[in-house]
Amino acid sequence: MRTNTLGGKSVIARIEMNTEEANFGQVASAIVEAGGDIVAIDVIQTGKQVTVRDVTITVVESAHIEVIADRMRSMPGIRLLHLSDRTFLLHLGGKIETKLKSPIQNRDDLSRVYTPDVARVCMAIHEEPRKAFTLTVKRNTVAVISDGSAVLGLGNIGPYAAMPVMEGKSMLFKQLADVDSFPICLDTQDTESIIAAIKALAPAFGGINLEDISSPRCFEIEERLREELDIPVFHDDQHGTAVVLYAALINALKVVGKSIADIKVVVCGVGAAGVACSKILMSAGVRNIIGVDRAGALTADTVYDNPVWQWYARHTNPERLSGSLQEVIRGADVFIGLSAGGILKRQDVLAMAERPIVFAMANPTPEILPEEVEDIAGVIATGRSDYPNQINNVLCFPGIFRGALDCRAQTINEEMKLAASEAIARVVTDEERGKHYIIPSVFNQQVVSGIRDLVIQAAIRTGVARRIPREYR
Amino acid sequence: MRTNTLGGKSVIARIEMNTEEANFGQVASAIVEAGGDIVAIDVIQTGKQVTVRDVTITVVESAHIEVIADRMRSMPGIRLLHLSDRTFLLHLGGKIETKLKSPIQNRDDLSRVYTPDVARVCMAIHEEPRKAFTLTVKRNTVAVISDGSAVLGLGNIGPYAAMPVMEGKSMLFKQLADVDSFPICLDTQDTESIIAAIKALAPAFGGINLEDISSPRCFEIEERLREELDIPVFHDDQHGTAVVLYAALINALKVVGKSIADIKVVVCGVGAAGVACSKILMSAGVRNIIGVDRAGALTADTVYDNPVWQWYARHTNPERLSGSLQEVIRGADVFIGLSAGGILKRQDVLAMAERPIVFAMANPTPEILPEEVEDIAGVIATGRSDYPNQINNVLCFPGIFRGALDCRAQTINEEMKLAASEAIARVVTDEERGKHYIIPSVFNQQVVSGIRDLVIQAAIRTGVARRIPREYR
Repeated sequence: MRTNTLGGKSVIARIEMNTEEANFGQVASAIVEAGGDIVAIDVIQTGKQVTVRDVTITVVESAHIEVIADRMRSMPGIRLLHLSDRTFLLHLGGKIETKLKSPIQNRDDLSRVYTPDVARVCMAIHEEPRKAFTLTVKRNTVAVISDGSAVLGLGNIGPYAAMPVMEGKSMLFKQLADVDSFPICLDTQDTESIIAAIKALAPAFGGINLEDISSPRCFEIEERLREELDIPVFHDDQHGTAVVLYAALINALKVVGKSIADIKVVVCGVGAAGVACSKILMSAGVRNIIGVDRAGALTADTVYDNPVWQWYARHTNPERLSGSLQEVIRGADVFIGLSAGGILKRQDVLAMAERPIVFAMANPTPEILPEEVEDIAGVIATGRSDYPNQINNVLCFPGIFRGALDCRAQTINEEMKLAASEAIARVVTDEERGKHYIIPSVFNQQVVSGIRDLVIQAAIRTGVARRIPREYR
Repeated sequence: MRTNTLGGKSVIARIEMNTEEANFGQVASAIVEAGGDIVAIDVIQTGKQVTVRDVTITVVESAHIEVIADRMRSMPGIRLLHLSDRTFLLHLGGKIETKLKSPIQNRDDLSRVYTPDVARVCMAIHEEPRKAFTLTVKRNTVAVISDGSAVLGLGNIGPYAAMPVMEGKSMLFKQLADVDSFPICLDTQDTESIIAAIKALAPAFGGINLEDISSPRCFEIEERLREELDIPVFHDDQHGTAVVLYAALINALKVVGKSIADIKVVVCGVGAAGVACSKILMSAGVRNIIGVDRAGALTADTVYDNPVWQWYARHTNPERLSGSLQEVIRGADVFIGLSAGGILKRQDVLAMAERPIVFAMANPTPEILPEEVEDIAGVIATGRSDYPNQINNVLCFPGIFRGALDCRAQTINEEMKLAASEAIARVVTDEERGKHYIIPSVFNQQVVSGIRDLVIQAAIRTGVARRIPREYR
């Protein structure tokens, strides 16, 4: 790996040192002077004159890595053997693997998990297909599926390059909610082919998590699969974002003392996530939502080619406001940004209602930086982890699928999503809640169990649970 | 689980015993008298008057389980609470799970394996697609794919009921060769749909193991996928069987002292496995192969509707023998049975050449039982584990994919299959080799590494390796 292709924050330098010509103190000083921080030192090999060490170095900016490398290369008695990027090292050979739930140690084990005895299990499922939920991985496994058409902020990078994201998602499913999952990146971007492929591979899975599929295809793909499959299909970019956003809004409204039925909300960026966020807010009781995209506010007075926008315009903006973001944001209580960095100005926030709620979720640069409006905003949230109140999908998908799998839900419906939001919001207690704490951390262990609980109850209540877990009987 | 649905050999009985009315000695005697063998006793709960124990019992025939259960039910002071089938217990919730290769413990870990830092890994693959082989699970992962149309001896039981077999196969891949894999059962039996689905899901995988797809569709599906994908596609029912059969034949010929170029071979059952076995033998130098199916010997004088038979008839049976198995087997050196139990008679074996080799691989009942011809056959092999010389696919697929993955082979070609056979045969040394030992056990640890070694060499030699492992450079 060459240093000039690096953009990360942590590297491991393998150096060979001739102890007659150099000492490690010189190396350490050079690293620190060049802007690096030594995190760990591992001695790999040591001899009379020569030692080899792995030095783990953290830097604030990736440019510092090159400076450090150059310094080391110029030091007498030091050879820089290798410079490894920790992020790339973590990805070598992929990030997940298969694990047997019980080992095959002898002929007896083999005959049970494979031929001939497995035939009895096969026939039990053949006679009663719902036994697939108890006797196969279907009970606990979700497919994480993308076509690589809209990956993170990177765009259409295709199925191969999308895999690391999907593998990361599979890791999070397992780590946070003990949901097994497998990442699948489809080598097609044709709507019908994607639908056909996912329907074909569905039998092994208890749920389908769609991911990073571009708009507007994502709408049709999800809708069709929801109709044609009997397991939950959940496009996380839409609904995961919506669930966490609404959770944050529940608490933000308590902080500013406003009621959901009375607020005026401007949603900036009417893509997949913007539409899903608007829909969940409508389900939750928000009556006045105005969607704004590049062409300004969407209004029922206009005809749109995009059928999703056409639907959106007819179901939002009751006052039929038109004009730019700057125009329609006046008097709004809530700004929800799912668009592009820097497009909201301090002047716009000043024009909002008192104690305005600003959710600036564009990544990596928010629609407005929190420091610009800290003094005038009631609550600010972003998509970033380096500011308070991060609106992060990771809060939703592990728990919502944990709940759906545990009650064998046929679908994840609107009530289950609202329940998930409520559960996330409740993790923040009345005492804890405040301007800078409306949403728990992704590592808060109450999140998954809280979501599971309310999601199962909602599934039972709405009749989509095919199994009532013991504790709810 | 009710006892009358059981066909297995081992159960766990949970019994509650009133210690004033009964003692465990009586229970144990009843089990043994009814034909059971007590393997383990676990005390679950113990009180002043009442104890609960799990008794693991092995029986020779499943009918004995009912007898034991009835006995226990009739004993005073004993209540049979539950009777569990160990095979079904092993299948609860599926047999494999996801494992993270490194845990996500904090924000720093999260940022590396997921957003934002994963983006750099994605872009590295986007810029250089072959990096998918180093930076994703593709490096070490095989898809085990079936449409459930020809599962074991059970027939067309569909994708849900086929899952336990595919999960078992995934376990074997991991346990025996450290190959990760995921079982996928397709909810379609249409050739084009299967091909499209597998092509669509291929990016995550380094190889495709097709399994239990019925003939003749399996031929077209495999052929098309081999042409259209750049990773190995291997229909195990065909080629796994063929590789292990040829391995057994190499050693069997040494035992009887015959040369492969001179033998006359009769293949009984010209389905997917029969064709594959014939092809590998032709590649290995056998010149006189005669295929026999229900209608008798296939001969170039006849026109067949089935294009595979048409091809087969034109490339085999050089003497254009016609007639029944009984007729064409006269003077044959080798019988290869992939057909149905009991169709080969002692008379037929007596009519073969001297020291005949009889591979009777029909399952569960061989074409002829070894005890019927033990005295007149040179070597006998079957597909069963309760006779010597079991011809078992499990010997091939873990090692051949281990080799293919390690050298990033584009395909598994004929040379690699022959090399795998050679490797399996070599595990049996000259000293060990004999009439009752021509093929190693599936638990012999030399098998996988031996196959890997020769398969990589064959891949390099034939130009299909995209990576030369360090030890071969």
